[in-house]
Amino acid sequence: MIPTATEAARRIADGDLTAEAYLRACLDHVAAREPAVRAFAAIDTGATLRSARGLDAGPARGPLHGIPFAVKDVIDTADLPTGMGSSIWNGHRPRVDAACVALSRAAGGVMLGKTVTAELAYVSPGATTNPHDAAHTPGGSSSGSAAAVAAGMVPLALGTQTGGSVLRPASFCGVVGLKPSFGAIPRPGMKLMADSLDTIGLMARTVEDAALFLAVLTADPPEPLPDIPAPRIGLCRTALWELAQPAAREAVEDAARRLEAAGATLRDVSLPPDFAGLTEARVTINDHEIARALADEWTNHREGLSERLAATVEKGRAIPRTAYAAAQGAAEFARARFPDAMAGCDALLTLGAAGEAPEGLASTGDSRFQGLWTLLHGPAIGLPTHRGPKGLPVGVQLVAPRHADRRLLAVARWAMDRLGSPFA
Amino acid sequence: MIPTATEAARRIADGDLTAEAYLRACLDHVAAREPAVRAFAAIDTGATLRSARGLDAGPARGPLHGIPFAVKDVIDTADLPTGMGSSIWNGHRPRVDAACVALSRAAGGVMLGKTVTAELAYVSPGATTNPHDAAHTPGGSSSGSAAAVAAGMVPLALGTQTGGSVLRPASFCGVVGLKPSFGAIPRPGMKLMADSLDTIGLMARTVEDAALFLAVLTADPPEPLPDIPAPRIGLCRTALWELAQPAAREAVEDAARRLEAAGATLRDVSLPPDFAGLTEARVTINDHEIARALADEWTNHREGLSERLAATVEKGRAIPRTAYAAAQGAAEFARARFPDAMAGCDALLTLGAAGEAPEGLASTGDSRFQGLWTLLHGPAIGLPTHRGPKGLPVGVQLVAPRHADRRLLAVARWAMDRLGSPFA
Repeated sequence: MIPTATEAARRIADGDLTAEAYLRACLDHVAAREPAVRAFAAIDTGATLRSARGLDAGPARGPLHGIPFAVKDVIDTADLPTGMGSSIWNGHRPRVDAACVALSRAAGGVMLGKTVTAELAYVSPGATTNPHDAAHTPGGSSSGSAAAVAAGMVPLALGTQTGGSVLRPASFCGVVGLKPSFGAIPRPGMKLMADSLDTIGLMARTVEDAALFLAVLTADPPEPLPDIPAPRIGLCRTALWELAQPAAREAVEDAARRLEAAGATLRDVSLPPDFAGLTEARVTINDHEIARALADEWTNHREGLSERLAATVEKGRAIPRTAYAAAQGAAEFARARFPDAMAGCDALLTLGAAGEAPEGLASTGDSRFQGLWTLLHGPAIGLPTHRGPKGLPVGVQLVAPRHADRRLLAVARWAMDRLGSPFA
Repeated sequence: MIPTATEAARRIADGDLTAEAYLRACLDHVAAREPAVRAFAAIDTGATLRSARGLDAGPARGPLHGIPFAVKDVIDTADLPTGMGSSIWNGHRPRVDAACVALSRAAGGVMLGKTVTAELAYVSPGATTNPHDAAHTPGGSSSGSAAAVAAGMVPLALGTQTGGSVLRPASFCGVVGLKPSFGAIPRPGMKLMADSLDTIGLMARTVEDAALFLAVLTADPPEPLPDIPAPRIGLCRTALWELAQPAAREAVEDAARRLEAAGATLRDVSLPPDFAGLTEARVTINDHEIARALADEWTNHREGLSERLAATVEKGRAIPRTAYAAAQGAAEFARARFPDAMAGCDALLTLGAAGEAPEGLASTGDSRFQGLWTLLHGPAIGLPTHRGPKGLPVGVQLVAPRHADRRLLAVARWAMDRLGSPFA
């Protein structure tokens, strides 16, 4: 496996590794795995190598100096097409990089390529397969980003999450997935679908790498995470508990037991009963906003939309504004109460996904296990902690209220130091 | 003066006016006024006329059938360049229409042209002059949209507001300006600058026209506004009261007296004392977000940014995340309390702007009188009710909590029916 981004950045700074050598190690994994995994929509190997050589020849640019990253294909890049996983946008060439791409490059990052997305970051899958078993979905919609990191093709990748599009593929592929607080990573240059939910997130192999990448993407100075010697963790089963596979529930229970044994304070936390309605509220908001976001595609390019996306647009157009406003009101009310609902905990521990990646490539899986937390606008991190009965990854999720991203990362690092990963 | 959109739509539906004839009346005003007003960044007269003739030859398309509208040049159009008021973006050709443009066209609207914007919808002005006196600013950043509507070149225009960029130019030019609830008009295809503040709004000559356009832009069925026989109006001077010109304060006091005499219930409403800090919180959020939104322009095209915008980026980059999160927290807390702060009123009546448009074209004026309400995410409407000592427009503003757009429009219609406009 390639070194982590944190390790490689240190070695490049020490003169012990070059950006070009690290990139070539990534490209070797692309050559070996891409024919089966199909994680990438576009790569320009020559341009990427020139970029790495330029970094090797120049002064240190920033905390990502010489670190390759991949970009979900609904995020603009000036030098590679941004196809949105849609025939309508095939070959689209944006004028400038999305803000998150520009921030990564300004910090010395090397843009390795664009990763496959489900159609317009919704549910109709692209060609990517699960690196652990090509007969299984990698999850979506950030399918290629999760698969590329899992296959060692790149240490870092950008994704987007409107329901569960970062944490679900991260869980299915066995990598760390971080959906930070709503708006924390700047969105200019991403394709907006459900404006009040769309959040840019990232994939990495370790929590340290996720924290490094997040600091760059938010243009914050890279600082050590706070030290939380004995985190208070709330075990939160939610109303979705019985819908998950036994392996997913067992992963959460096992993680809770082991973290408590390691010194964490564990307690059961139940969300207020009306939070159960938030899953439906998220769908109402999602469908209403997507129907309006796609006004041009719907009017002028309807034949280019999949049946599933067209059905969502039709459903969303029929949702009255009063129902939309009620769903937004419920979401705003829940967001305001979420810090109190944490009951003094630093983070809640909950299901990462329904379980192992389903067999087949026709569906990217169930977004409800991530969507509730997307709606709450706080940070959520998926941790690759377990294997299921088929040997595929099963993860757990830690969540916190909005703006508590660094505290959540500190708890996640503490937890992963104790739990370890079968995929590290 | 050209007929209003509402009147023209009715006459076109009745066969009493054609889309082409209405468009030609608009283009006559463009020919007469544009050399001095300079409202437009791009017009394709031939394509617009073909579009109008196509509508005349076909079935009724929707509530805007045959109605011309103009589009601020930070909003994407597939058939005219979108130059953002910036040399960096000069000649940019987006792939598809912004959602708000596509919704307008799908309802039968005729896109007349792109209107001049301050640089990237911030503060460095374009060439537009005030249609009431070319030696005065039209306000900004939606300068061309307000001036075009005021000069009778077009009945409806789209703008955007991050601080005061719809209501200030509307006030200075003597037209109705509507900034609806945050997110009500879908944003895909607008250039995001301060993501948590940017709101698409509109200019019109009457409240009825604003309501008609808003229904189209939100994809809601056009329905009559609710009837509010005796609205409860709160006179809200805010902490900015003494900073306004006497004419602006007198306009608010005069409107309050006359509306009370006409049957409204008037009461003084004071915002909670800590709302005074929201003006500074908005600037913190604005600068922090803009600095990150412009990551590509800053890194790769810095010479194309004005000194003022570059200074804001530098200032914004230095704002720590903790200060940003605190400002966001204050904003969220204020938004949650705003409905109660209304003290049972249907709308608050407040200053529309600092007063008459300042002389000179170097500044677009002070955004604080609009920015507080932008931060609160509720709808705000500017009404052209008065003249100042120089004979230039002075307006008042009505505001309401988020999602109360239709109630606010109903109160505004009731008020304008009684106050009248010197510019109607």
